[in-house]
Order: sequence, then C-alpha cells, then structure tokens
Amino acid sequence: LEAIMPRFTRSTIPVLLRLDARAREPLFRQIDTQLREAMLSGRLRPGTALPSTRLLAAELGVSRNTVRQAFDQLIAEGFIESEIGAGTRVAAGFALQQPGAVREPTRPRRGPPRAPVSRLTRRLAEVKLPQSPRAARPIDGAFRLGLPALDRFPVETWARLAGRRWRRATASQLDYGDPQGERILREALAAHLGRTRGVSCDADQVLVVSGSQGALDLIARVLLEPGSKAWVEDPGYYGALGPVLTSGTRMVPVPIDDEGLDLAYARRVAPDARAVFVTPSHQFPLGVTMSLGRRLELLEWAGRGDAWVVEDDYDSEFRYDARPLTALQGLDGGQRVIYVGTLSKTLCPSLRIGYIVLPRPLVESFVRARRFVDTHPPTIHQLVAADFITEGHYGRHLRRMRSLYRERQDALVRALRSARGSRWRVSPSGAGMHLVAWLPPGADEAQLVDTAAREGVSALGLAMFRSRSTGPPGLVLGYGSVRASRMADAIEALDRAMDACGITGVPDAAPRAARGRSRTGAVRGRRTRKG
Amino acid sequence: LEAIMPRFTRSTIPVLLRLDARAREPLFRQIDTQLREAMLSGRLRPGTALPSTRLLAAELGVSRNTVRQAFDQLIAEGFIESEIGAGTRVAAGFALQQPGAVREPTRPRRGPPRAPVSRLTRRLAEVKLPQSPRAARPIDGAFRLGLPALDRFPVETWARLAGRRWRRATASQLDYGDPQGERILREALAAHLGRTRGVSCDADQVLVVSGSQGALDLIARVLLEPGSKAWVEDPGYYGALGPVLTSGTRMVPVPIDDEGLDLAYARRVAPDARAVFVTPSHQFPLGVTMSLGRRLELLEWAGRGDAWVVEDDYDSEFRYDARPLTALQGLDGGQRVIYVGTLSKTLCPSLRIGYIVLPRPLVESFVRARRFVDTHPPTIHQLVAADFITEGHYGRHLRRMRSLYRERQDALVRALRSARGSRWRVSPSGAGMHLVAWLPPGADEAQLVDTAAREGVSALGLAMFRSRSTGPPGLVLGYGSVRASRMADAIEALDRAMDACGITGVPDAAPRAARGRSRTGAVRGRRTRKG
Repeated sequence: LEAIMPRFTRSTIPVLLRLDARAREPLFRQIDTQLREAMLSGRLRPGTALPSTRLLAAELGVSRNTVRQAFDQLIAEGFIESEIGAGTRVAAGFALQQPGAVREPTRPRRGPPRAPVSRLTRRLAEVKLPQSPRAARPIDGAFRLGLPALDRFPVETWARLAGRRWRRATASQLDYGDPQGERILREALAAHLGRTRGVSCDADQVLVVSGSQGALDLIARVLLEPGSKAWVEDPGYYGALGPVLTSGTRMVPVPIDDEGLDLAYARRVAPDARAVFVTPSHQFPLGVTMSLGRRLELLEWAGRGDAWVVEDDYDSEFRYDARPLTALQGLDGGQRVIYVGTLSKTLCPSLRIGYIVLPRPLVESFVRARRFVDTHPPTIHQLVAADFITEGHYGRHLRRMRSLYRERQDALVRALRSARGSRWRVSPSGAGMHLVAWLPPGADEAQLVDTAAREGVSALGLAMFRSRSTGPPGLVLGYGSVRASRMADAIEALDRAMDACGITGVPDAAPRAARGRSRTGAVRGRRTRKG
Repeated sequence: LEAIMPRFTRSTIPVLLRLDARAREPLFRQIDTQLREAMLSGRLRPGTALPSTRLLAAELGVSRNTVRQAFDQLIAEGFIESEIGAGTRVAAGFALQQPGAVREPTRPRRGPPRAPVSRLTRRLAEVKLPQSPRAARPIDGAFRLGLPALDRFPVETWARLAGRRWRRATASQLDYGDPQGERILREALAAHLGRTRGVSCDADQVLVVSGSQGALDLIARVLLEPGSKAWVEDPGYYGALGPVLTSGTRMVPVPIDDEGLDLAYARRVAPDARAVFVTPSHQFPLGVTMSLGRRLELLEWAGRGDAWVVEDDYDSEFRYDARPLTALQGLDGGQRVIYVGTLSKTLCPSLRIGYIVLPRPLVESFVRARRFVDTHPPTIHQLVAADFITEGHYGRHLRRMRSLYRERQDALVRALRSARGSRWRVSPSGAGMHLVAWLPPGADEAQLVDTAAREGVSALGLAMFRSRSTGPPGLVLGYGSVRASRMADAIEALDRAMDACGITGVPDAAPRAARGRSRTGAVRGRRTRKG
C-alpha cells in the first residue's frame, strides 16, 4: 500500500509547494501551478515519482479531492503520467529539452527579442504623427484639430436607436455580415452623398470601413505597389498616410498654390506617379479649394496615365457659403476617383465609421481585401448609423453643427483680429473646422506651441505639416470644440504665450496659396475665379 | 439692356436643357446639373456668353431666383464667370483640355482600368476561401463551421448595457480612444483569460482588435517579412491566412500527427521559419490537442531561432472534459507566443471583437501599426463588451453554451452512429464546435457537399483544408448552431445525399492524427498520454 511503502523522501514535494489558504486562487490551482513551475524549471525531473494523492493531501493538510483535482489537470495536460500499478510520475516528455530552457518567468532570457518586427513596421516608426502637447487646464478643446463639438452629439437619440436595434437583432444580424458593409447603411450613405456632395454613385460602389484611416489603409494595400510614386499635398496631413509609406510607395510632396495642388510641378517632378492623395474641397491645412480647371486637368492626367485620384473629403459637410461644392468624384463619372469620407468629424471619432466610394471595376478587389483585414465594422453599429441617417437625425445634426461651427469660426476670427498688437493674420474660410493663423516672420512655432500648452491651449505649428515646402510661420487652429464664449479666453492665452516667447512684429500678407476663399467672396464678392 | 441686346441666339441655352417640374430634383439643381454636363461634354465651349438670369428664366418659364441659384452654384464651383458689365460666360478654365475628355458618364472611356490593383491584391485573389454552398431550406445552421448558437445570444442584456453606456457617454468616450483598446476591456479580458485559459498577462499586453481576422492581419504586417517562411498546419484554416500570404511570407504546410504539429518534419523542411501559426488546444479541423512534449519543443525551437509562435485559441472556451487546457501562452512566460482569441465564437461574429496577447517587447510596435490600420473598434461597443464580461454575463453565457454544445455534439455523434450502413465514422471531441465525420474510401467529397446543400445541409469537405497532406475523405461538421432535436434530420439529409452520390462501404479506421482525444479519455479513460 502506498502509505506503507512510500517511494519518495517524505518531504520532497511539500517543500516545493507554498500554499496560501487565504489567497483568491483555489488550493487545487495553487498546487497545479506550483508543480508545473517546478517541472518546467527542472526542479522536478522527468520520471520522478510523485506521492499518492492521499499521502500528499495528508502532508499538505488539504482534502484528497483538492490534490486529485490538481493531478487530473496535470495529467490532462501531459505534465504527469499515471499508470495503474505504477503510480504517478513526471512525464517522460520533459526529457526533450534542457530544464529551465523554456521558461524563466521573471525576465526575458536574452534581453529583448532580436529583429522583432518587419520592415514595414520599421518604416511606420518613421512616420511623424503631428501631436500637440496636452494643454494644462484646457480651455474647452482649444484648438485641437478635427475634433467636433462632442457635447452636441445626440447621445440620447443614439442610445434609443441602439437599444431598439439590439432588442430586435435577428440571427443573421449576429452572424458574419457583408464585408462591403450593411446594405442599408451603404444605401443611406449613397443617397446622402449624392444629395449633399454631388457624389455620383449607388450602394454597390460604397464600402463601409473603420474611419478614413481604415479607408486610406485599404486603398494603399489594394492599389499601391512598392517602388511606385504617389503625389501628396505639401503641406498636408502626413499622419494619415502611414499606410502609403508602409506600402513601399514613394511619396512625392507637391506644393499648394492658390488653385490647389501645383500640377505643373507634380507633372514635371514625377510624371509617372500612380496615385495622388488630395483634399480638393478644403485643402488641409491651408483651406484652398481646388479650382475647376485644376480639377479637370487632374482627372485628365489620371485618365491618361491610369493613375488613381484619392479624394479625402474630410470636412466638407461644413461649408458655410452657398451649397457645398461638388466633390471631385462627381466630375469624374466613376473612372479614376476614389472618394473617402468619415463620420468622425460630422458625428464623433469614436464611432469608427468611414466609407469609400469606388469606381465599379475596383469593388471586387476591395471587398476581397476587406474580408482579410477585419471583415466589417460591428453589424448592429452599422444599422444604428443607417437608422440615424435615414430617420433624418443626421441631416438635422449637420445643419445644427454647420451653424454652430460658422458661429465659432466668426468668434475665432473676431478674437484674433482684436488681439493685441496685430501679431495675427487670419482669413476666414468658407468651410471646415480649422483656420490657419499666420505669425510674424521669424516666430518660433515649436516654442509657441509648447508655451501655449502651459496656458491651456493645444495648437499645432504649420511646419508640422510641411515636407519640403516653406512659408511663413503659423498655427493651425481647430475651433470645432471651442464654445464661442470661450474663444476670446483661448486667444488671450495664445497671446500670453506669444509674449512669453517674445514674438513681436506683424505677419506678412498671407501667401496667395494660404489665403483660401473668403466666405462670401466665392459667390458674390469675388465674381471671377481667375481674375 | 440685356433684353434689348441679346448676345446669343435666343434658343441656344433652352435647347440644351430639359427641365421636369415634377421630378424630385429641384429645378435649380436640374439647370445646374444640365449646364455643367453641357460644358464638360464640350457642347458649351469656354468663353461662350450666357443669357442673363432674367432672360433665361423667362425662356425656361421658371422664376428668376431659380436660375440665379443655379448660376451661383456654377460660379462658386468655377464653371462660369460673371464680371460686372461683361455678363456671364463659360469659364476660360475649360480651354485646358479636350472637350469631353474627362467625362463620359455612360460607360468607361477605354474599358476597365489597366493594372488596377497591387501585387498584394493579386496574391490575395489566389487565396481559396473554403465556402460551403448555401443550403436550400437549411436545417438550422447544419453544419456551418464556427457558427455559434445565435438564437441564444442574450440580446436583451446587450441592449440594456448598450443603452446604458450610450446614455452615459462622456466626451472622452466620443473622442478618439486608446489604439490599444479601452483599458477596462483589456483588464476584463486579461482577468478572464488568466482564469479560464491559463494565459499569463496583464492589461498592458492585451490589444483589442476586430476579430481574430484583424489579429492575424496585424500580426502578419508587424512581424512577417517578404521572403521569410512560416509554418502552417496542414490541414488547417488557410482562409484566415490571407494576410500571411499578402505579406509575401512563404507558407510551409506541416502535417498534423497524433500529438499535433509534426515538428520533426517542419524542422527538416524549413528550419529557418520565422513564425508558426498553430491551434494547439484543439487543432482545426482535426481536433488534436498538442502534447506537452510537443509544446515544449516548439517553444524551445522558437526561443532559439527568435521565431514567433502565433497561438490561435479559436474555440477553446468550449472544453467538455475537466477544466480547459492551459494555453500554450501560459507555458511560455511571455517570450515568443502571441495569443489570439475572439468573441466571434463565444458570443457572435457580428460583434467584431477579438484580442491579441503580446510579449511585452512587441506592444509598442503593434499599437503603432494599429493606429494606422483603423485605430480601434467603436469605443462604446468596447465598453459594453467590458461590462458584459465584468458583470458576469459572459461567464454565465459560456457555461450555458458549453453544456449546450456538449449536448449538441452528443446528439451529432448519436445520429452519425445510428445512420444507415455505417458509412460514417466519428470520434467525439473533448472541445469545440465541430467534428470530422470520416467517409468511406473513394467518396467524392465535392460532389457530396454539393448534393448535401440541395438537401438542406451546408458542409465542407476535409480536402478544402488540405495543402499537401493527404488522408481519407471526410466532412467537417459544425454543430454549434444545430438544435439537438434537429440533428437526426440533418444527418438523414446527409445520408440521402450519400445515396444520391452512390457512396457505399465503410470508412477506414480514422487516422491516428485525426482521432483526437476522446472526451473522457484525457482525464480518466486513458491514463497515459504517450502510452
């Protein structure tokens, strides 16, 4: 009998174990875990005989069942073997490797793993993400870029729609969905974009993605080839173009002039580009609207060279003069333009819903790629977004936000113009949620940005968005999340920062390319575009 | 005055326009659209003088304001120019290109675009996606793979949690979130995985992604290098490995034996592999559990060669014998194993929530890449999932589903064993939501699959999952979504399909590697693992 003929020194196992009856982990789990650690570290060698459950239980002062539970688990996982008549032993499988070679739980065996990441990841590490320093005691959201008025997001309405959709969820809505996106959302988006942006498409051309970042990533993967070239705007938002970089595409920065992308330059420097990334409705960050002539020239170039035009229409729902300008996509007739939009700025970023409008011949390739990336956004979430649009909440919200942002821009312009010493120069913009505030020549943007953060204001210097282009210094100010009543305070804080940085003097006249279209000028004030 | 001295033939413009007062599109929009089409197509040339708004209104029989609205829009977009004293003309910008070159709205100019997609996309087109034909009059979800019991998803609870989270949404929850995933969800997942899967990690190592597909995609991008090699299981689920393929990595299929991945073969054929993709807890599709010896050998190999072990723990929450087997990750001590899991099978696929548990040195690279892919899943959605876990709903649901799937597996095994003619051979599995049902030698899987679909049953042949490995024919049957009461009907339908295909005879004894562990054998019936 086991109790009569112990096959091991009485104290071998108990000394390896340190049980704590008051710990949250049950006793059987403690025995299990500690025994396997002992085996993995080599303290218990393959073939070592273990005591019977009865004996070990007595030695440890626990119930036999507790030990049996631990042993069952160790047997199930192959750590120990039990043969009738031969007792229980540490499994022979352990002879395969050096004791302790697999696991040293406290720290890496040989420092951090070698060559841990791919070339793509190393490329990604080079992307500079323009991030403003976090402001101390921030004055509203002054002046974070791209941030809408989050306190105006209709959470009650969304909660109601979400609750309704979840309660009525059908089995097929819980199953894998369409990798192109839920049809009713695609239909709602196609109708909305046709009506408000002059985008010419139907639901079959719309692909629902996770924000415009997800869109750019998918586009880069499906269309760009390592070694090929793509024109990008300079200044521009390179932060979003990480996927272009990781695709191995060479980005060719193209300056912006008064009519938008300087095509003459681009065609001279990189006539063989395969793609171009543009913000024609409201160039980021300068605010220029691409002229019709430039649009037509761009489309003609793309058609001749079979290049792709990626139109990022990031904030054009907020156009304050006349009806919003038609998207470039609408001019193209579904040939070469890939249109990208998002609900991040019209509703809120955390929804993670964006969309791509594709030329028909590309749809299949994109849907196939999408299936392998992450299939689709959560289905019920998409359906709630569709209800939000089709039931009219979206249109109402856009109208409200349009007048809110206009009011906020007016307040910002007033505050800047009435600031001390005329150290700012600013032109109103007919669209969007940000303005460029120009600084006196020689002003140190970076120092100002840091100082402003201490005064409660986040801002980004224009230089953060430049590649090779040069120009006078300035700050890019996002006003979407700053109440009109707080605007003067925010500008005063910026003014204090200017004082602290010793910035004096008067800005140069804003460069042509940066003047943008004045709000009223486009329709009435300025009667000709090329005059 | 204009009315006295018309500068154009009275009928020039009106003949270009076809207005329909009863159309949904407002009249001003019809005028705008049709005039721009005329300009883009070259029917109206640059410099052409347009009639005054007053005159055109009279000619068209619309109000002057209607025409003015259309003209304002055309001026705003640069199609026409209006100078005081000189009247309104088609803009000179049109001289830049051939009339009609940009847009032919009816069909593509030169057929489908040339070279439309990248090499990656062309690679992706080669991935065979195992998709079963849609069954006519389907018998429940028989036998779709990976599909959980969707009718048991607690929609009411989820609706309540979602409504609550949305109503209480804070501004910071509407803003961009943490690209690693919401902290409370990562904490909930880390605690759950430690408790139920023996995964050793904290919230800092968890990355929330969009399902396990999103996980594999991110892993491939961050870690795999074009031209490198990765071991993959054969048979295995290649459908998910599209991202590995597009990364340019060479997949090396490795056979499965009774202890899991055949490491001796793998080390002989591709000793320099940089990564291995495995399902050690419950191999897909054969159901084998990787032995402890094999696990240790695998980890040792990975540590020596700085290779990555990607552990896809796709269905191991559903383990019917004893406590679930510990994940490979728990053996490794956070060195070389990247653990992948998903809520798609434990809850439902349309949630699109998955997770990666990373060795600490990799976290930063993954989070950075994630930011460029699609940032993060919708924030409130993540918070609802966290509530669902921490409030105990998840644990309860898993326990319910575990007993439900066990019951369904029992019913499936009974039905197969009592089917006519012993044409099936099946071994129960200690885990998961699918079984392999072996067929008589020579049975034509593909024909059977097609015929079964007509009888109401979706199934997939084992050959769909094979690369170079061979073995007897069989079907992979997902039973998660088939009620026990419908199981006999579903098998009868399969039997009818067998008859129609003329399949007779008795299957060979299931090959060793395919037998899996019997439900009880692991713990009690079979006392030794290597015996």
